[in-house]
Amino acid sequence: MLVRQILGLKGGSEVVTLPKGTKVAEAARTLSAKRIGAIVVVDDAAPMGILSERDIVRELGRRGEACLSDTVDALMTRDMVTCAPDETADQVLSKMTEGRFRHLPVLEAGAMVGLISIGDVVKARLSELSMEKHALEDMIKGF
Amino acid sequence: MLVRQILGLKGGSEVVTLPKGTKVAEAARTLSAKRIGAIVVVDDAAPMGILSERDIVRELGRRGEACLSDTVDALMTRDMVTCAPDETADQVLSKMTEGRFRHLPVLEAGAMVGLISIGDVVKARLSELSMEKHALEDMIKGF
Repeated sequence: MLVRQILGLKGGSEVVTLPKGTKVAEAARTLSAKRIGAIVVVDDAAPMGILSERDIVRELGRRGEACLSDTVDALMTRDMVTCAPDETADQVLSKMTEGRFRHLPVLEAGAMVGLISIGDVVKARLSELSMEKHALEDMIKGF
Repeated sequence: MLVRQILGLKGGSEVVTLPKGTKVAEAARTLSAKRIGAIVVVDDAAPMGILSERDIVRELGRRGEACLSDTVDALMTRDMVTCAPDETADQVLSKMTEGRFRHLPVLEAGAMVGLISIGDVVKARLSELSMEKHALEDMIKGF
Protein backbone atom coordinates (compact mmCIF):
# COMPACT_ATOMS: atom_id res chain seq x y z
CA MET A 1 0.00 0.00 0.00
CA LEU A 2 1.31 3.41 -1.03
CA VAL A 3 0.92 6.88 0.47
CA ARG A 4 -0.98 7.86 -2.69
CA GLN A 5 -3.63 5.20 -1.94
CA ILE A 6 -3.86 6.18 1.72
CA LEU A 7 -4.59 9.77 0.71
CA GLY A 8 -7.29 8.41 -1.61
CA LEU A 9 -8.90 6.36 1.18
CA LYS A 10 -8.83 9.40 3.46
CA GLY A 11 -11.06 11.06 0.90
CA GLY A 12 -9.35 14.23 -0.17
CA SER A 13 -6.00 15.72 0.47
CA GLU A 14 -6.82 19.06 2.03
CA VAL A 15 -3.98 20.28 4.23
CA VAL A 16 -4.92 22.80 6.88
CA THR A 17 -2.37 25.60 6.99
CA LEU A 18 -1.92 28.80 8.97
CA PRO A 19 0.34 31.70 8.05
CA LYS A 20 3.41 32.36 10.19
CA GLY A 21 2.68 35.00 12.79
CA THR A 22 -0.67 33.42 13.76
CA LYS A 23 -1.09 33.15 17.55
CA VAL A 24 -0.98 29.71 19.18
CA ALA A 25 -4.41 30.34 20.75
CA GLU A 26 -5.83 30.72 17.25
CA ALA A 27 -4.09 27.52 16.13
CA ALA A 28 -5.73 25.67 19.06
CA ARG A 29 -9.12 26.96 17.87
CA THR A 30 -8.40 25.70 14.34
CA LEU A 31 -7.22 22.25 15.58
CA SER A 32 -10.35 22.00 17.71
CA ALA A 33 -12.83 23.21 15.08
CA LYS A 34 -11.41 21.01 12.31
CA ARG A 35 -10.85 18.01 14.62
CA ILE A 36 -7.29 17.54 13.45
CA GLY A 37 -4.00 16.95 15.24
CA ALA A 38 -1.55 19.13 13.32
CA ILE A 39 -1.34 22.22 11.15
CA VAL A 40 1.27 23.14 8.56
CA VAL A 41 2.69 26.64 9.06
CA VAL A 42 3.30 28.50 5.81
CA ASP A 43 5.17 31.58 4.65
CA ASP A 44 3.03 32.66 1.71
CA ALA A 45 2.36 29.20 0.30
CA ALA A 46 5.74 27.70 1.28
CA PRO A 47 5.64 25.18 4.17
CA MET A 48 7.88 26.32 7.06
CA GLY A 49 7.10 23.70 9.69
CA ILE A 50 4.38 21.74 11.42
CA LEU A 51 2.56 22.49 14.69
CA SER A 52 0.91 19.58 16.50
CA GLU A 53 -1.25 19.19 19.60
CA ARG A 54 1.87 17.79 21.24
CA ASP A 55 3.93 20.93 20.52
CA ILE A 56 1.27 23.06 22.22
CA VAL A 57 0.85 20.86 25.31
CA ARG A 58 4.63 20.46 25.75
CA GLU A 59 5.04 24.25 25.84
CA LEU A 60 1.95 24.74 28.01
CA GLY A 61 3.56 22.35 30.48
CA ARG A 62 6.90 24.14 30.39
CA ARG A 63 5.76 27.77 30.43
CA GLY A 64 2.04 27.81 31.12
CA GLU A 65 -0.58 29.84 29.33
CA ALA A 66 1.91 32.52 28.24
CA CYS A 67 2.71 30.33 25.22
CA LEU A 68 -0.82 30.90 23.84
CA SER A 69 0.26 34.42 22.84
CA ASP A 70 3.33 33.10 21.01
CA THR A 71 3.23 32.74 17.25
CA VAL A 72 2.90 29.34 15.62
CA ASP A 73 6.33 29.66 14.04
CA ALA A 74 7.91 29.93 17.52
CA LEU A 75 6.45 26.58 18.64
CA MET A 76 6.34 24.59 15.42
CA THR A 77 8.73 21.80 14.50
CA ARG A 78 10.97 23.26 11.80
CA ASP A 79 12.79 20.14 10.64
CA MET A 80 9.76 18.62 8.99
CA VAL A 81 10.14 15.03 7.93
CA THR A 82 8.06 14.48 4.81
CA CYS A 83 7.14 11.61 2.53
CA ALA A 84 6.42 11.05 -1.15
CA PRO A 85 3.22 9.61 -2.70
CA ASP A 86 5.08 6.48 -3.85
CA GLU A 87 6.44 5.51 -0.41
CA THR A 88 4.91 2.46 1.22
CA ALA A 89 2.79 2.41 4.37
CA ASP A 90 5.54 0.55 6.24
CA GLN A 91 8.17 3.10 5.21
CA VAL A 92 6.16 6.00 6.58
CA LEU A 93 5.24 4.07 9.74
CA SER A 94 8.97 3.53 10.34
CA LYS A 95 9.66 7.24 9.93
CA MET A 96 6.84 8.05 12.35
CA THR A 97 7.83 5.61 15.09
CA GLU A 98 11.57 6.40 14.81
CA GLY A 99 10.96 10.14 14.99
CA ARG A 100 8.10 9.83 17.48
CA PHE A 101 5.74 12.00 15.48
CA ARG A 102 2.31 11.28 14.11
CA HIS A 103 1.90 13.48 11.05
CA LEU A 104 3.80 13.56 7.76
CA PRO A 105 3.26 16.09 5.00
CA VAL A 106 3.22 14.47 1.55
CA LEU A 107 5.35 16.30 -1.01
CA GLU A 108 5.30 15.79 -4.78
CA ALA A 109 7.62 17.82 -6.99
CA GLY A 110 8.18 20.27 -4.15
CA ALA A 111 4.46 20.92 -3.58
CA MET A 112 2.49 19.74 -0.56
CA VAL A 113 -0.25 17.39 -1.78
CA GLY A 114 -1.51 16.02 1.53
CA LEU A 115 -0.90 15.25 5.20
CA ILE A 116 -1.23 11.77 6.66
CA SER A 117 -1.45 10.75 10.29
CA ILE A 118 -0.33 7.51 11.93
CA GLY A 119 -4.05 6.73 12.37
CA ASP A 120 -4.69 7.13 8.62
CA VAL A 121 -1.82 4.77 7.77
CA VAL A 122 -2.78 2.13 10.34
CA LYS A 123 -6.42 2.22 9.25
CA ALA A 124 -5.44 1.76 5.60
CA ARG A 125 -3.07 -1.12 6.43
CA LEU A 126 -5.72 -2.89 8.52
CA SER A 127 -8.27 -2.61 5.75
CA GLU A 128 -5.71 -4.00 3.30
CA LEU A 129 -4.96 -6.95 5.62
CA SER A 130 -8.67 -7.61 6.03
CA MET A 131 -9.18 -7.63 2.24
CA GLU A 132 -6.25 -10.03 1.80
CA LYS A 133 -7.76 -12.30 4.44
CA HIS A 134 -11.13 -12.35 2.70
CA ALA A 135 -9.47 -13.01 -0.66
CA LEU A 136 -7.60 -15.97 0.85
CA GLU A 137 -10.81 -17.29 2.41
CA ASP A 138 -12.57 -17.04 -0.95
CA MET A 139 -9.71 -18.93 -2.59
CA ILE A 140 -9.96 -21.70 0.02
CA LYS A 141 -13.74 -21.94 -0.47
CA GLY A 142 -13.10 -22.22 -4.21
CA PHE A 143 -11.11 -25.46 -3.80
CA MET B 1 1.99 -10.29 18.61
CA LEU B 2 0.14 -9.77 21.90
CA VAL B 3 -0.37 -6.72 24.09
CA ARG B 4 1.64 -8.52 26.78
CA GLN B 5 4.68 -8.65 24.45
CA ILE B 6 4.26 -5.02 23.40
CA LEU B 7 4.34 -3.96 27.05
CA GLY B 8 7.52 -6.04 27.43
CA LEU B 9 9.18 -4.35 24.43
CA LYS B 10 8.23 -0.94 25.81
CA GLY B 11 10.35 -1.84 28.83
CA GLY B 12 8.15 -1.55 31.85
CA SER B 13 4.50 -0.98 32.36
CA GLU B 14 4.45 2.18 34.48
CA VAL B 15 1.19 4.07 34.04
CA VAL B 16 1.30 7.74 34.91
CA THR B 17 -1.78 8.69 36.93
CA LEU B 18 -3.10 11.84 38.56
CA PRO B 19 -5.80 12.02 41.23
CA LYS B 20 -9.17 13.53 40.31
CA GLY B 21 -9.30 17.18 41.28
CA THR B 22 -5.84 17.89 39.82
CA LYS B 23 -5.81 21.05 37.67
CA VAL B 24 -5.40 20.72 33.90
CA ALA B 25 -2.37 23.07 34.03
CA GLU B 26 -0.66 20.58 36.34
CA ALA B 27 -1.58 17.71 33.99
CA ALA B 28 0.05 19.61 31.10
CA ARG B 29 3.22 19.94 33.22
CA THR B 30 3.19 16.19 33.89
CA LEU B 31 2.62 15.30 30.20
CA SER B 32 5.46 17.63 29.24
CA ALA B 33 7.93 16.51 31.93
CA LYS B 34 7.33 12.79 31.34
CA ARG B 35 7.13 13.19 27.55
CA ILE B 36 3.90 11.22 27.32
CA GLY B 37 0.62 11.76 25.51
CA ALA B 38 -2.00 10.70 28.06
CA ILE B 39 -2.58 10.34 31.79
CA VAL B 40 -5.00 8.06 33.60
CA VAL B 41 -7.16 9.91 36.14
CA VAL B 42 -7.76 7.94 39.32
CA ASP B 43 -10.07 8.10 42.31
CA ASP B 44 -7.88 6.55 45.01
CA ALA B 45 -6.36 3.82 42.88
CA ALA B 46 -9.45 3.22 40.71
CA PRO B 47 -9.17 4.46 37.08
CA MET B 48 -11.92 7.00 36.30
CA GLY B 49 -10.91 8.10 32.80
CA ILE B 50 -8.06 9.16 30.55
CA LEU B 51 -6.83 12.66 29.72
CA SER B 52 -4.85 13.11 26.50
CA GLU B 53 -3.03 15.98 24.81
CA ARG B 54 -5.97 16.04 22.41
CA ASP B 55 -8.54 16.56 25.20
CA ILE B 56 -6.57 19.57 26.43
CA VAL B 57 -6.09 21.20 23.01
CA ARG B 58 -9.73 20.61 22.01
CA GLU B 59 -10.90 22.46 25.13
CA LEU B 60 -8.26 25.18 24.76
CA GLY B 61 -9.62 25.77 21.29
CA ARG B 62 -13.23 25.87 22.47
CA ARG B 63 -12.86 27.90 25.66
CA GLY B 64 -9.35 29.29 25.75
CA GLU B 65 -6.98 29.32 28.70
CA ALA B 66 -9.84 29.20 31.25
CA CYS B 67 -9.80 25.40 30.87
CA LEU B 68 -6.35 25.24 32.47
CA SER B 69 -7.98 25.89 35.86
CA ASP B 70 -10.49 23.07 35.34
CA THR B 71 -9.90 19.73 36.99
CA VAL B 72 -8.69 16.75 35.00
CA ASP B 73 -11.91 14.85 35.69
CA ALA B 74 -13.90 17.62 33.92
CA LEU B 75 -11.91 17.23 30.68
CA MET B 76 -11.03 13.53 30.66
CA THR B 77 -12.68 10.89 28.50
CA ARG B 78 -14.84 8.85 30.86
CA ASP B 79 -15.82 5.96 28.63
CA MET B 80 -12.37 4.46 28.55
CA VAL B 81 -11.88 1.72 26.01
CA THR B 82 -9.38 -0.76 27.43
CA CYS B 83 -7.64 -3.92 26.27
CA ALA B 84 -6.39 -7.15 27.79
CA PRO B 85 -2.81 -8.52 27.76
CA ASP B 86 -3.84 -11.42 25.51
CA GLU B 87 -5.35 -9.26 22.74
CA THR B 88 -3.44 -9.06 19.47
CA ALA B 89 -1.73 -5.99 18.05
CA ASP B 90 -4.23 -5.88 15.17
CA GLN B 91 -7.20 -6.06 17.56
CA VAL B 92 -5.98 -3.05 19.54
CA LEU B 93 -5.08 -1.13 16.37
CA SER B 94 -8.66 -1.65 15.17
CA LYS B 95 -10.03 -0.32 18.45
CA MET B 96 -7.75 2.70 18.20
CA THR B 97 -8.55 3.62 14.61
CA GLU B 98 -12.30 2.99 14.98
CA GLY B 99 -12.51 5.11 18.13
CA ARG B 100 -9.94 7.67 16.90
CA PHE B 101 -7.85 7.51 20.06
CA ARG B 102 -4.22 6.72 20.55
CA HIS B 103 -3.92 5.28 24.04
CA LEU B 104 -5.39 2.15 25.59
CA PRO B 105 -5.06 1.17 29.25
CA VAL B 106 -4.30 -2.53 29.67
CA LEU B 107 -6.45 -4.24 32.31
CA GLU B 108 -5.84 -7.66 33.82
CA ALA B 109 -8.27 -9.05 36.39
CA GLY B 110 -9.65 -5.54 36.94
CA ALA B 111 -6.24 -3.99 37.65
CA MET B 112 -4.43 -1.60 35.31
CA VAL B 113 -1.16 -3.21 34.29
CA GLY B 114 -0.01 -0.82 31.56
CA LEU B 115 -0.87 1.77 28.94
CA ILE B 116 -0.01 1.38 25.26
CA SER B 117 -0.02 3.98 22.53
CA ILE B 118 -0.62 3.55 18.81
CA GLY B 119 3.10 4.31 18.36
CA ASP B 120 4.07 1.45 20.72
CA VAL B 121 1.87 -1.01 18.82
CA VAL B 122 3.06 0.06 15.38
CA LYS B 123 6.71 -0.06 16.45
CA ALA B 124 6.28 -3.57 17.85
CA ARG B 125 4.48 -4.78 14.70
CA LEU B 126 7.17 -3.33 12.43
CA SER B 127 9.94 -5.00 14.43
CA GLU B 128 8.02 -8.29 14.22
CA LEU B 129 7.66 -7.95 10.44
CA SER B 130 11.35 -7.15 10.13
CA MET B 131 12.28 -10.24 12.17
CA GLU B 132 10.01 -12.43 10.03
CA LYS B 133 11.66 -11.01 6.91
CA HIS B 134 15.15 -11.79 8.23
CA ALA B 135 14.07 -15.29 9.24
CA LEU B 136 12.73 -15.91 5.72
CA GLU B 137 15.96 -14.56 4.20
CA ASP B 138 18.00 -16.88 6.42
CA MET B 139 15.83 -19.83 5.35
CA ILE B 140 16.41 -18.97 1.70
CA LYS B 141 20.16 -18.69 2.27
CA GLY B 142 20.03 -22.10 3.95
CA PHE B 143 18.77 -23.80 0.80
